[in-house]
Amino acid sequence: MTVRVAILGAGRIGQVHAAAIASVADAALVAVADPAAAAAQAVRDRFGAEVRSIDAIAASDDVEAVIVCTPTDTHADLIERFVSAGKAVFCEKPVDLSLARVKTCLAHVEAADGVLMVGFQRRFDPDFIALKQAIDAGRIGTVEMLTLTSRDPGAPPVEYIKRSGGFFRDMTIHDFDIARWLLGEEVSSVQAAASVLTDPAIAAAGDYDSANVILTTASGRHCTITNTRRASYGYDQRIEVHGSRGSVAARNTLTARIEIADADGYHRPPLLDFFMSRYTAAYAAEIAAFVHCVRTGAPLPTTGHDGMMALALAEAALISVAEGRRVALAEML
Amino acid sequence: MTVRVAILGAGRIGQVHAAAIASVADAALVAVADPAAAAAQAVRDRFGAEVRSIDAIAASDDVEAVIVCTPTDTHADLIERFVSAGKAVFCEKPVDLSLARVKTCLAHVEAADGVLMVGFQRRFDPDFIALKQAIDAGRIGTVEMLTLTSRDPGAPPVEYIKRSGGFFRDMTIHDFDIARWLLGEEVSSVQAAASVLTDPAIAAAGDYDSANVILTTASGRHCTITNTRRASYGYDQRIEVHGSRGSVAARNTLTARIEIADADGYHRPPLLDFFMSRYTAAYAAEIAAFVHCVRTGAPLPTTGHDGMMALALAEAALISVAEGRRVALAEML
Amino acid sequence: MTVRVAILGAGRIGQVHAAAIASVADAALVAVADPAAAAAQAVRDRFGAEVRSIDAIAASDDVEAVIVCTPTDTHADLIERFVSAGKAVFCEKPVDLSLARVKTCLAHVEAADGVLMVGFQRRFDPDFIALKQAIDAGRIGTVEMLTLTSRDPGAPPVEYIKRSGGFFRDMTIHDFDIARWLLGEEVSSVQAAASVLTDPAIAAAGDYDSANVILTTASGRHCTITNTRRASYGYDQRIEVHGSRGSVAARNTLTARIEIADADGYHRPPLLDFFMSRYTAAYAAEIAAFVHCVRTGAPLPTTGHDGMMALALAEAALISVAEGRRVALAEML
Amino acid sequence: MTVRVAILGAGRIGQVHAAAIASVADAALVAVADPAAAAAQAVRDRFGAEVRSIDAIAASDDVEAVIVCTPTDTHADLIERFVSAGKAVFCEKPVDLSLARVKTCLAHVEAADGVLMVGFQRRFDPDFIALKQAIDAGRIGTVEMLTLTSRDPGAPPVEYIKRSGGFFRDMTIHDFDIARWLLGEEVSSVQAAASVLTDPAIAAAGDYDSANVILTTASGRHCTITNTRRASYGYDQRIEVHGSRGSVAARNTLTARIEIADADGYHRPPLLDFFMSRYTAAYAAEIAAFVHCVRTGAPLPTTGHDGMMALALAEAALISVAEGRRVALAEML
Repeated sequence: MTVRVAILGAGRIGQVHAAAIASVADAALVAVADPAAAAAQAVRDRFGAEVRSIDAIAASDDVEAVIVCTPTDTHADLIERFVSAGKAVFCEKPVDLSLARVKTCLAHVEAADGVLMVGFQRRFDPDFIALKQAIDAGRIGTVEMLTLTSRDPGAPPVEYIKRSGGFFRDMTIHDFDIARWLLGEEVSSVQAAASVLTDPAIAAAGDYDSANVILTTASGRHCTITNTRRASYGYDQRIEVHGSRGSVAARNTLTARIEIADADGYHRPPLLDFFMSRYTAAYAAEIAAFVHCVRTGAPLPTTGHDGMMALALAEAALISVAEGRRVALAEML
Repeated sequence: MTVRVAILGAGRIGQVHAAAIASVADAALVAVADPAAAAAQAVRDRFGAEVRSIDAIAASDDVEAVIVCTPTDTHADLIERFVSAGKAVFCEKPVDLSLARVKTCLAHVEAADGVLMVGFQRRFDPDFIALKQAIDAGRIGTVEMLTLTSRDPGAPPVEYIKRSGGFFRDMTIHDFDIARWLLGEEVSSVQAAASVLTDPAIAAAGDYDSANVILTTASGRHCTITNTRRASYGYDQRIEVHGSRGSVAARNTLTARIEIADADGYHRPPLLDFFMSRYTAAYAAEIAAFVHCVRTGAPLPTTGHDGMMALALAEAALISVAEGRRVALAEML
Repeated sequence: MTVRVAILGAGRIGQVHAAAIASVADAALVAVADPAAAAAQAVRDRFGAEVRSIDAIAASDDVEAVIVCTPTDTHADLIERFVSAGKAVFCEKPVDLSLARVKTCLAHVEAADGVLMVGFQRRFDPDFIALKQAIDAGRIGTVEMLTLTSRDPGAPPVEYIKRSGGFFRDMTIHDFDIARWLLGEEVSSVQAAASVLTDPAIAAAGDYDSANVILTTASGRHCTITNTRRASYGYDQRIEVHGSRGSVAARNTLTARIEIADADGYHRPPLLDFFMSRYTAAYAAEIAAFVHCVRTGAPLPTTGHDGMMALALAEAALISVAEGRRVALAEML
Repeated sequence: MTVRVAILGAGRIGQVHAAAIASVADAALVAVADPAAAAAQAVRDRFGAEVRSIDAIAASDDVEAVIVCTPTDTHADLIERFVSAGKAVFCEKPVDLSLARVKTCLAHVEAADGVLMVGFQRRFDPDFIALKQAIDAGRIGTVEMLTLTSRDPGAPPVEYIKRSGGFFRDMTIHDFDIARWLLGEEVSSVQAAASVLTDPAIAAAGDYDSANVILTTASGRHCTITNTRRASYGYDQRIEVHGSRGSVAARNTLTARIEIADADGYHRPPLLDFFMSRYTAAYAAEIAAFVHCVRTGAPLPTTGHDGMMALALAEAALISVAEGRRVALAEML
């Protein structure tokens, strides 16, 4: 059985997901919608999908699943609409920047017995999966401490930052999700520190560019997260998990596996410097997983609940910075 | 302009090349031939090519280029036939196991002013290309010494070995080509040592499983090649180039970029253990290069002459082992 | 000019420092004191020092400097006494477990215009010095974030823990000092989380075995510290400094620089697992620096003030854990 | 029992060995001889040895062992003289540059039932010992292939080269010894290639600066050796051993264990660039082993026979280069 998919939004990430659908054996891209006609036509020309309106897709009998790649402020409405229309929905994170809106949206999905997968592509990165498998296989004993290092190669435009929901909701949210994935129990409290070190314009926009966070679980496990918008050497994405019997670390991806030695020493190339090249395989695996779940009814690997929990952690972090205190996650939920 | 391609031979490597054609923007796979109907139909079903006979392909006006993936003993005849038919030809190495036959075939190609690319996929590996670019950019000064380490994860079946032309023609030939690519001048003499260390059946078949070779150029540059059929930790493929101002090395490809630490120390996963997974990107880039050259008339990156020279080095190595002497390449040509 | 030194306390660390004195060209070990006669005699026999009482050393004209290696609760008194006697004093950290007592002791030293170096051997580790030099040379631009990972191979006996002043004063104190050394400005606030994950007996003793700390400076620089008493793979000591133009990291010290590859992958030996073997070179360099300063009057690299500041950070961390809030360092001073 | 040692020759390597004696618990340096009075006095002043003539040392009842650090052309005579005088002898390699002279010297030692250890310090390097232990523990199965990479940071003065016995006797000789140590069976044949790539003055002196060698044993095991006088990035010393069940490699020693990341990539410092700093620990361990054997009568780890065999391999390599053929070691012995 082939899953027939439509893509809502034909921008950068929409094109990534269209290519992913094209590479999955049991899926077919049948339609694409975008208010920008050129963007929609580009997807049509490259992947063979028909250009339709969102309304038409909602009414299409030949579409079983949609991938929502529209601007964030449309996500919750589209999720509700397409779940109501009986379509399985994959939505890029976040469901919404407001935790309250996320809650009403998820309640709608649940009432409709809908299928909603929220995109956290890092969980599908081959190296991070190998790390998770090592933990699950008992290689490091019981998980005790996580160290997540996520550094962007450079800040996005300030205009993007203004609409992004802020540093914790836009950037750290991926680390919050990875923390929940790997800690083995829910986070109970959040301590955070944040500042602006790279560009005063970011402060002027009311946001941060540098942050560190400590998450603690009920049994006392910890996760530290180190984030900055600026790493001169590329897109720095590392996970280290310390357990009772050992540790496991996932390393970075360099642009080439060569090393030069000269009178100044040993030199390797910088990191991949773009999230789409860094996570190419992850994006494809994520969509393949969604298609698999739609086709077989298997449990979704990442859900609306995961999206909500990561957002709640982001809000807790914001309060911790503002009030200088440890914030219980329970306060958010 | 789209280059219309046919594939001759739909076995393992034929399927790899078919997938490569499918991923190249300016190429279309229009036909496939294979005496085994099921193999040809599998390529048809997956990539949309029409199944035709070799004769039909030679006569097809809608085919501009062929990729020869048939057994080795058919290569030279097919090259001659398709060059005469005005098709551009990509042929998997070797052109033939006999140096004399290679020479007559290349003479035929030259007389017909034909286009012949011989496959040496390693030259298209992204890491090896990065290494080559570092050399060409002057990062290590003048090339002085190469160290090539190629170790297979395990020997092929003895039946394969018997038809393979022997260790130097089947395995070391890739290293001979890389040596020529990187040394910056032609090899002038060959010293080789070979033995059987992993399986007496290989000796019984008249072949070797372990060899070391020293190549020397006219100006005194050296290349050492270390080969074995058996590396327990995977498919070991390393290049190190030493120059007047530094060195550059290309590293191996592990199955995952993770490291586990426990009471026994630090542990990383083994290498990829199959040449097709190790060189996936290289095979695709190789075919893309062929298509590009056919489309634009650009010079071919690897030619019949390269195939002949690598084979001549293999024959020189065999003589060096047998006679215990340094063999001049000129003796072969 | 040779600096004539006496050692107070001939236990484990006293012997390390005696060996260091013996290896320094411009120093001579003339006396040793220890209530345990056998310990003192061992130092005498190995290094040629005379066994004297502490009283006798205080009165010795042939002793210019003393190295205090006695139990912690004697440090402050001995510092005051020997400074008053006109001797230069090197004292192992901490000056005292009570910040108030440290302050009165330092006031005494200052009033007497005394020479007091407090031991923080990590600042003298050759790799950490190389890291510091890279920062000072501008290799990474302005320092923005530190990540300190310090994991002991195993917890000390609970009896030791009870007298140690607790996790932050005993273990994290080294990281607090390194943070001050590398951040380039003073810490202004502390957020900490701590728990017991390895042994309930540690909780019963009122202490922690696992902690994470965020330090923030006035300009918004951050340092995260990750500590645990238990790392199965050895004594894990890493520093990573992130700056505006790059990062620099100091790596661990393995027991041997070999790597084994087999069917399970690549394997390196575990880390050195004892602070005295890990920091052998650092201890020697630290004492050499002390001797140098005594001999030349050069400024001391680590002072009583450094000891006090690290202790103040430990106390702030304790309050942060207890009260769940960000604690200003100013509250401690 | 303390072994009383004299050092003959107080130059650079004599001073290294004097320091080693000083650090060994069961040895005492009692005398030093050198025609250059200042050199002898420097050793006296630093290590407390008495300055004596060689004649006086030969007649000294308080000297049990001598360490020969004089010029190469005096080695064989001094060995014979001091063995005859009943002293245990440690001699820096080589015994002599002439294989014939080595043979008569060793015959003399054997006739006198003398104790002669020949210095091959690399066997005492801690990392190489760890590698050897991994092999002996069966971690890689049966040894099949060795790859030895030895690159000097720069050529010695041409005046030194003229007296050195040539590239193979002066530089490769260490690799020949390591090959014999690790191959597990004697070398049976040698193939070598050599050239001058770094400095025409070396060619004018009749020597080489670059060489590659293949050694083969009776059962078909191989060792390749890659040598050059010039590595811009330091003193490159690597061993890789490939076995039936895995491989083990010993890595280089960098000047510091730090890594800097910036916009150009990742950077580590160069290698130690001097054999005496690279092998500091090895030299000390070598002398400690000699003292241990003299004291206990334990078998010597490296003997005059080892010195002779390494020299025979050097001569075989020279013939192989000159005559372009595989040379049987039996021809040399």
